[in-house]
Amino acid sequence: MPGSKSTAEQYADYKLKMQKIADVRNAIAVLGWDQETYLPEKGAAFRGQQITTLSSIAHELFTAEDLGSLLHQLQNNQDLNAVQQKNILLSIEDYDKNKKYPAALVAEISEATNQAYHAWIKARKANDYQIFAPALTRMVELKRKEADILGYEDHPYNALLNEYEKGANTSMLDTIFTEVKSALSPLLDKIAQQPAVRRDFLHRNYNKDKQWKLGIDILKEMGYDMKAGRQDISEHPFTTSFNPLDVRVTTRIDENDFSNMTWSCIHEGGHALYEQGLPSEQYGLPCGEAASLGIHESQSRLWENNVGRSLDFWKFQYPKVQQLFTENLSDVSLEEFYHAINHVQPSLIRTEADELTYHFHIMIRYEIEKGLIDGSISTKDLNHTWNEYYRQYLHVEVPDDAQGVLQDIHWSHGSFGYFPTYSLGSFYAAQFFASAQKQVPELATDIASGQYHSLLEWLRTNVHPFGRFYTSNELCEKITGKPLQFSYFLDYATKKFL
Amino acid sequence: MPGSKSTAEQYADYKLKMQKIADVRNAIAVLGWDQETYLPEKGAAFRGQQITTLSSIAHELFTAEDLGSLLHQLQNNQDLNAVQQKNILLSIEDYDKNKKYPAALVAEISEATNQAYHAWIKARKANDYQIFAPALTRMVELKRKEADILGYEDHPYNALLNEYEKGANTSMLDTIFTEVKSALSPLLDKIAQQPAVRRDFLHRNYNKDKQWKLGIDILKEMGYDMKAGRQDISEHPFTTSFNPLDVRVTTRIDENDFSNMTWSCIHEGGHALYEQGLPSEQYGLPCGEAASLGIHESQSRLWENNVGRSLDFWKFQYPKVQQLFTENLSDVSLEEFYHAINHVQPSLIRTEADELTYHFHIMIRYEIEKGLIDGSISTKDLNHTWNEYYRQYLHVEVPDDAQGVLQDIHWSHGSFGYFPTYSLGSFYAAQFFASAQKQVPELATDIASGQYHSLLEWLRTNVHPFGRFYTSNELCEKITGKPLQFSYFLDYATKKFL
Repeated sequence: MPGSKSTAEQYADYKLKMQKIADVRNAIAVLGWDQETYLPEKGAAFRGQQITTLSSIAHELFTAEDLGSLLHQLQNNQDLNAVQQKNILLSIEDYDKNKKYPAALVAEISEATNQAYHAWIKARKANDYQIFAPALTRMVELKRKEADILGYEDHPYNALLNEYEKGANTSMLDTIFTEVKSALSPLLDKIAQQPAVRRDFLHRNYNKDKQWKLGIDILKEMGYDMKAGRQDISEHPFTTSFNPLDVRVTTRIDENDFSNMTWSCIHEGGHALYEQGLPSEQYGLPCGEAASLGIHESQSRLWENNVGRSLDFWKFQYPKVQQLFTENLSDVSLEEFYHAINHVQPSLIRTEADELTYHFHIMIRYEIEKGLIDGSISTKDLNHTWNEYYRQYLHVEVPDDAQGVLQDIHWSHGSFGYFPTYSLGSFYAAQFFASAQKQVPELATDIASGQYHSLLEWLRTNVHPFGRFYTSNELCEKITGKPLQFSYFLDYATKKFL
Repeated sequence: MPGSKSTAEQYADYKLKMQKIADVRNAIAVLGWDQETYLPEKGAAFRGQQITTLSSIAHELFTAEDLGSLLHQLQNNQDLNAVQQKNILLSIEDYDKNKKYPAALVAEISEATNQAYHAWIKARKANDYQIFAPALTRMVELKRKEADILGYEDHPYNALLNEYEKGANTSMLDTIFTEVKSALSPLLDKIAQQPAVRRDFLHRNYNKDKQWKLGIDILKEMGYDMKAGRQDISEHPFTTSFNPLDVRVTTRIDENDFSNMTWSCIHEGGHALYEQGLPSEQYGLPCGEAASLGIHESQSRLWENNVGRSLDFWKFQYPKVQQLFTENLSDVSLEEFYHAINHVQPSLIRTEADELTYHFHIMIRYEIEKGLIDGSISTKDLNHTWNEYYRQYLHVEVPDDAQGVLQDIHWSHGSFGYFPTYSLGSFYAAQFFASAQKQVPELATDIASGQYHSLLEWLRTNVHPFGRFYTSNELCEKITGKPLQFSYFLDYATKKFL
């Protein structure tokens, strides 16, 4: 008798159903966290099965007819407040999208992904793209099918983009990446003419335990709540959240590379602060979730680059680091250190790129993905296409497939449209940080004295509390008064690197 | 159209449904493991909610009508082999039992348990039984109701006992505990007349890291597969299994108590070897589960006491331990050490009791539980009743409620009928170990030279692989040729302690 229930009661039902689904999804996240941190090796197969089972339960719960009818009853109900209305609206979007996938396609994608992942592992090991090519071809076909089912305007790639970044589309990205090319290329040329800097000291031996301590100290100083989170070791650093009161980060430590742990730790810390800052009373509801991947990445990159690679940041941190690693850094000045950690140089591997050439790596992947989806680029000999792009934009020769087209896991996971969010994150970060600098006059001196609370407070007021209430673009306009503009990043980069 | 399916297809359906339920239950176990080991403190409330959600999903899946009709179609189907038939039979038992609980009672028990647990915590803190009494009274009432719903012969307590130890009943336990009293009491009197032994060295400072290493070494030597398990730290040591290829143990380390970690580690190792030895192809099915709590406890106690407190065991281990902790043990002979770790003395706290007086602690709890359930003992002034029992059987004066009736968590969890499985475990262990000694002539010399594989092989052949195929008693008869008899434990104790 849902008709006889009051709006408040119906909304409470909706909330309960959504939180139940969130509980299952967060249980999956715990299983995933454990898988990457502590799972004994023989436990992998059963763990995969457990995750599959919970995923199918979550899917069933989120496609249940009674949830659907409840949602549509609550749609446009003026007795709900703005946040509640937005939750209903977004849940309907998610629900309808979920219902579009025929069960057969879900199963086919799941199976193809599993196959593609193993083919990619094998191809990487053999350093041979041809081993991966058939699985990639199938994956691209499925992704085109998916785009058709989801629906799109202008370009099928837009449907896939929207899975990660609502509102993003090829015309917006084409504009941005044209600017990247036209503005960053000359900047890179100028940087290339600067005198060489010392970098050897970053690869001296940095004790594991001391690095761990440094990472934990920085996380705490950033404002990461260790009573609502923890750090562990994993092969690839990541952040995972089970609710705003349990947000975990991982890191990795390379004793011969100071950079490896340090900036991944700050990066994940930025993600984690966002998750800890989401409203816990909105648990399980859209307004309790991150706005988008791009906004998520803006938080990690703002801390990693705008803060963590700034001279101000190291004015305070460097003397401490120097003392911690006297054996390595006593002969290195702050300025030498600062230049070393901001060295710009075109390279082969995306994850090791500096913060400028990085966006060429993304642009190349964007162009290729778009072409694969609209058919203008073929998976046949995609390694050669890839190498041609690297030659053209980064002026580097790709020596083999493992250091080329096979370097990223994303396509083997079926993630098409994900890469652009990395660049969008950096560009949002620059634009947000410019606003913070304007609105918080003491920001620079605070950072230079190891005080990050004014920045965190600004983020906690302007970015974190809204969840998905605003789209990325709405949030950007609200915070900065303007839609996303590449010029902020360019200004930041020009000031910093010239 | 289930009628049109072959038996093999129906059995496959059954297996799939059961494994799905197992996946959910094992996910709950992972959440529980994480809760006791790594959960950040603020994450507790959401974690509780996540576990509740998954529990209700598991319950729904295991009370689904289509599972019920499938089970009854497969009942007594002669096309199934003996193990398959047993799985069906036991699943029907479990299913029917599950269906007996009205949803209202499940909710009431869950709510009362939550309340009782918090009352118990509060009462312990205040050292005042009266704070816990009302919650305990309600719990006892609910347990009586539960017994009525489940049904029983002779005594309502039998219904509760059977939840933990199928086939156990008051007449069997009365017989056993009468023997405990009549045979152990004079033995204790004789032991009390033996000269005092040195024990001070067990409380010297034992370095944490070295203790950790010792524990891991012993676990590995016992045959615990570290690639299908791991050890972590928790407040209370426990074993948890997510499947036979992921069985985890925890321990705790007290730097001022050598015993604390050592025997809890061996104890949990015994539990873990059982779980690792269950047939993984029976995952999710009754024949893939432990036979009973009593049999589970027989495995932990066999390793902890019959092996881990034996002179043979320490003949090999002690020189290593002495070398590891030279600073503490260089002046202590093997014999002194052996006597110290086997010191018998009536005491107040069950979990700290020696392996003989331990059974008086259990007997007292058994008598009280039985009396509470049949109404012959009242929760009113149960602390005084408790103290009277301790005076009578252990000749100790209980100074306060925290060291008396409030010491165990079990009743606050609603676990009535659980305690007896601890004693049953020890008695099964003694009887099993006597068989192993007879059937493996080299057992003593193997143990004395640090070789435990012949024992493990015996357990892997005789105890572990059957799961619930045999009940505790059937298993005991199969292995030892006789039903459970207290005389084996008495023989073991007399030989060891006199």
